[in-house]
Amino acid sequence: MNLEIVTIGDELLLGFTIDTNAAHLAREFAALGVRIVRRTTCGDDADAIRDAVQQALDRTGAVITTGGLGPTADDQTKPAIASIFGRGMVMDETILANLEARWLKRFGHALPDSNRQQALVPEGCTILENRHGSAPGIWLEDARGRWVAMLPGVPREMRGMVADTMLPRLRDRLPQHGPVVRARTLRTANIAESALADRLGELARGVDGLSLAYLPGNDGVDLRLTSYNKPAMDTERALRAAADKVREKVGRFVYGEGDDDLAALMLADAGARGDTMAVAESCTGGLLGMRLTAVPGSSRVFLGGTIAYANEVKTRELGVDAAVIESQGAVSEAVARAMATGARLRFGSTIGMGITGIAGPDGGSAEKPVGTVWVAVDLRGEVRAVRAILPGDRSEIRWRASQLALDRLRKLYARDEDATGWTARGN
Amino acid sequence: MNLEIVTIGDELLLGFTIDTNAAHLAREFAALGVRIVRRTTCGDDADAIRDAVQQALDRTGAVITTGGLGPTADDQTKPAIASIFGRGMVMDETILANLEARWLKRFGHALPDSNRQQALVPEGCTILENRHGSAPGIWLEDARGRWVAMLPGVPREMRGMVADTMLPRLRDRLPQHGPVVRARTLRTANIAESALADRLGELARGVDGLSLAYLPGNDGVDLRLTSYNKPAMDTERALRAAADKVREKVGRFVYGEGDDDLAALMLADAGARGDTMAVAESCTGGLLGMRLTAVPGSSRVFLGGTIAYANEVKTRELGVDAAVIESQGAVSEAVARAMATGARLRFGSTIGMGITGIAGPDGGSAEKPVGTVWVAVDLRGEVRAVRAILPGDRSEIRWRASQLALDRLRKLYARDEDATGWTARGN
Repeated sequence: MNLEIVTIGDELLLGFTIDTNAAHLAREFAALGVRIVRRTTCGDDADAIRDAVQQALDRTGAVITTGGLGPTADDQTKPAIASIFGRGMVMDETILANLEARWLKRFGHALPDSNRQQALVPEGCTILENRHGSAPGIWLEDARGRWVAMLPGVPREMRGMVADTMLPRLRDRLPQHGPVVRARTLRTANIAESALADRLGELARGVDGLSLAYLPGNDGVDLRLTSYNKPAMDTERALRAAADKVREKVGRFVYGEGDDDLAALMLADAGARGDTMAVAESCTGGLLGMRLTAVPGSSRVFLGGTIAYANEVKTRELGVDAAVIESQGAVSEAVARAMATGARLRFGSTIGMGITGIAGPDGGSAEKPVGTVWVAVDLRGEVRAVRAILPGDRSEIRWRASQLALDRLRKLYARDEDATGWTARGN
Repeated sequence: MNLEIVTIGDELLLGFTIDTNAAHLAREFAALGVRIVRRTTCGDDADAIRDAVQQALDRTGAVITTGGLGPTADDQTKPAIASIFGRGMVMDETILANLEARWLKRFGHALPDSNRQQALVPEGCTILENRHGSAPGIWLEDARGRWVAMLPGVPREMRGMVADTMLPRLRDRLPQHGPVVRARTLRTANIAESALADRLGELARGVDGLSLAYLPGNDGVDLRLTSYNKPAMDTERALRAAADKVREKVGRFVYGEGDDDLAALMLADAGARGDTMAVAESCTGGLLGMRLTAVPGSSRVFLGGTIAYANEVKTRELGVDAAVIESQGAVSEAVARAMATGARLRFGSTIGMGITGIAGPDGGSAEKPVGTVWVAVDLRGEVRAVRAILPGDRSEIRWRASQLALDRLRKLYARDEDATGWTARGN
């Protein structure tokens, strides 16, 4: 099944809003085996909407629109699309009753006449219930089976309706064993794209006919395996087999899959082992603590931390020897180690993590360029440190430093002592 | 001038990549007076590219494409668009020489034959220099003045080329005093959309013919004034006058304009007054410290902080009376005040900021629902606290709590003592 998407809204054309709906729709439908062949964005203008939807319908016979269903006066979508099907607009009494009840409850008075038009729908359409907002979706289909589904533009509502109504509807229309597009992502940290490719050897460009993409980001390099042309059941099996092969080669760098967050994973690991955590942060300034406490329930494992931005704070709060800061610099192995141990002792945790580095844009030198970071992890008195020269701007360097610290703990748990980190810029 | 954008790439259609280029292009061109009337996304397929670009060209005579210029074998863009203009492909010796030099330098060997096709360009085109990457852009124009500009898809490269070559080129083609679309945004914090509208009164729906949009986000509600149909010079004047009128009504809630970041502004204010900062964070877990240290040069003002996640840490590290935590709860005015003062004294700063709250999803009660936050600011011994019940999920509540603390400092500096904060969910 081929499908087109038309997203509607002046805000999109003017660039005030970034269209995240389109990518969400595309992923959901590709996983089902529906191919999105074109996506069009037009403004809140009846002619433009009719033109764009008509052309899309002529090409594929199946169109999803998002946006243009709101309660504003410039709502042109429903009548414009109804006219393509030669349909007029009729009042839907159920929608009208809901609107009236909502107004009374929210504003304490009756629905103004000008808002009654929200309850107008194309003749002969199917109403798609919207459990996540006020404007329902509309499904319009002709005798030849050509259809347009109109969904709201608010991402939360649109996503809810796709799950609630669109995916089940489309699933019913699809052949049982048609090809689907699905992906599986292995997340690696602290290893460069080129080093991954070297270790993968003959798998570097693909595994058993599945494509392998390298997606570098601040968390590390994600390895995305994609299957484009197998039926759903074979796809799952093929992805699992390919992921196993990739793990055989580079598994020690893989910390998770999909959307896994290294902070959440390490909190779970530490909790399962009866460990508790504290942090001492210089260049990251609270970012590692923020990431750990972003995880609901983290208070069972995470006790607290010291943001030791000034050198005197490192000495007074964490017991870092001022003479060591003087002789080796605040960004040094000895300081990172002392910070980690200082945090563990101060907060009475079993794990302390210390981060010190030069996040830039200023403060770099030939010996210690911007991006130089030392992290250390103290696990019940056993301390491991690792240095890296992280690429990117200030915010990227800081995020990568927090990832380096979490990954060092992962390797300490895994007893994997080859913790190289990033050793050159842009690596 | 009307323009269409065609973005090219299977990654976009499959939803693996979110298209941020389109919004950037739209904003840049709208500000110049160029109206983008439609945007189309198609895959890396010669027929689809030719079809989409041909239709766009027929509608407007002016098309910008992004993507499809990379060194991969599936590069179809240039020949597909050349064929629309009836042009063949020719080898460009300058591009070829650059490529050869680049390969020698980067990989230490000669350019493989398979990569020579990157130097093929449509006959009679103009090469658009790309100072930000390897693939240059292409400008193709026919005798009637209809044109297509092909830009790379990598956002950094695309943005650089828009600034370097596209904007100057289009500016030359535009009438001197045509209408432009420009916006100006005032940023407010800790006041609800409806309360802003109430205070704005007759200005609530627009100011002197400029539209006024309310854009709620985690930083607060942004007020965006937009001018759609005046020449550039009048636009600037009208936006300035309208912004002044809005400030007259709600200026005390306005902390900045455009992309202003409240953390950066407060660091600058504190620095100018000779103040220094320390933080004590419970529910935000380091997020306020992270925001402050995200600003380059923050070390001149920000000394450090304590992440006091566990209650014992609040008592031991910040001197919060355990009996007060017991009697009033960890989320209370007294604890927030003690945390702020504790941070100031501990780190020897002139400002201490304390945050304690219930970020959820668990931990709420009837009396203190999820979202309840107390923040306090101690400025040289003068302490102000404010309570809010913040809307949103865990991450939104945490961000809003950091914004509430920074805004409380702003109001303390401004001697504006009406610091209500958010007092009801969804307000």
